[in-house]
Amino acid sequence: MSLPAPLEHLIEQLRKLPGIGAKGAQRLAFHVLKTPREDAERLADAIREVKDRVTYCSVCTNITDIDPCAYCADERRDRRIICVVEEPQNVSVVERSGGFRGMYHVLMGALSPLHGIGPDDLKIRALLTRLVDGGVEEIILATNPTVDGEATAIYLARLLKPLGLRVTRIATGIPVGSDLEYADELTMGKAMEGRREVG
Amino acid sequence: MSLPAPLEHLIEQLRKLPGIGAKGAQRLAFHVLKTPREDAERLADAIREVKDRVTYCSVCTNITDIDPCAYCADERRDRRIICVVEEPQNVSVVERSGGFRGMYHVLMGALSPLHGIGPDDLKIRALLTRLVDGGVEEIILATNPTVDGEATAIYLARLLKPLGLRVTRIATGIPVGSDLEYADELTMGKAMEGRREVG
Repeated sequence: MSLPAPLEHLIEQLRKLPGIGAKGAQRLAFHVLKTPREDAERLADAIREVKDRVTYCSVCTNITDIDPCAYCADERRDRRIICVVEEPQNVSVVERSGGFRGMYHVLMGALSPLHGIGPDDLKIRALLTRLVDGGVEEIILATNPTVDGEATAIYLARLLKPLGLRVTRIATGIPVGSDLEYADELTMGKAMEGRREVG
Repeated sequence: MSLPAPLEHLIEQLRKLPGIGAKGAQRLAFHVLKTPREDAERLADAIREVKDRVTYCSVCTNITDIDPCAYCADERRDRRIICVVEEPQNVSVVERSGGFRGMYHVLMGALSPLHGIGPDDLKIRALLTRLVDGGVEEIILATNPTVDGEATAIYLARLLKPLGLRVTRIATGIPVGSDLEYADELTMGKAMEGRREVG
């Protein structure tokens, strides 16, 4: 004897979500069961709405509900600089940092020979298309400081430098507010390597 | 500038779920965005189905899609013993332990003066109704070994003992497969208190 079939089914669906294990899926399913009907329906509707209304910008591949996206459509942004990131969610991280007022380009992943992801699987061709008209002076490579992200940055740097662009890479180092004690040796090494003169 | 409105809305709905923080909600929302439409719809439908089809057993308050529930309807189960638990999800934990073939009763919570939950807020009256016909010989109090769960067990023991029933409480102690080193002092104390003669 087990749980009612609809509940088992919901647990099964929830388990497919990232970071949700067997226990977590069960806790969430029981929460849905207990929650007022309106709240559960709002959640179900919100899931559908995302699939119905969110799409990808035809220029930068960022997620958007209007095409081109708000960043690409904003005339006040600096079209001379393009910040290249791996995933749509990385755009808001850069944007929240506050200092950047240029354009974005989302690769939709990183090069990963191990997972069979090559240059043609990423939005690299679309990036090159954006450079055809000229006007772009700098490409900031803001892929993750991981093996795949670094490989992607190196690949793009080699591809873009010959076009006469300034190609830069975001800094790796100790996070603000963190303690050296908790830094792994690779990060610490990068922080030393990237040291700057002060005063 | 921020995320597309439908995505923001989904993140907001996901944040209401237990154990899902700001980062978790964002990760889940982006997963929904990336996942095939059929998977997202299956999840949305599963949420609705639970609200539409799962209800509470009119006898034991366990969750069920048929009333009375499969446990209460099963003629082979031992009607002389009722195991009392706090929440519907506790039923399957007891059931999975394998040894119990009696009936269940779900209180739908525990006494908690701090949160204003008194005896009338729990399914205690429904439990007493089940005892009217006679035939029940033992009540196992399987509320949680927490302050509220213990208080509920003590309250129920005082209420039920005068009815001439055997009233028992599940054992508290060191979990199987665990190490004494990781036991908190309260659990260790309970384990010592509940020691049994061996050999």
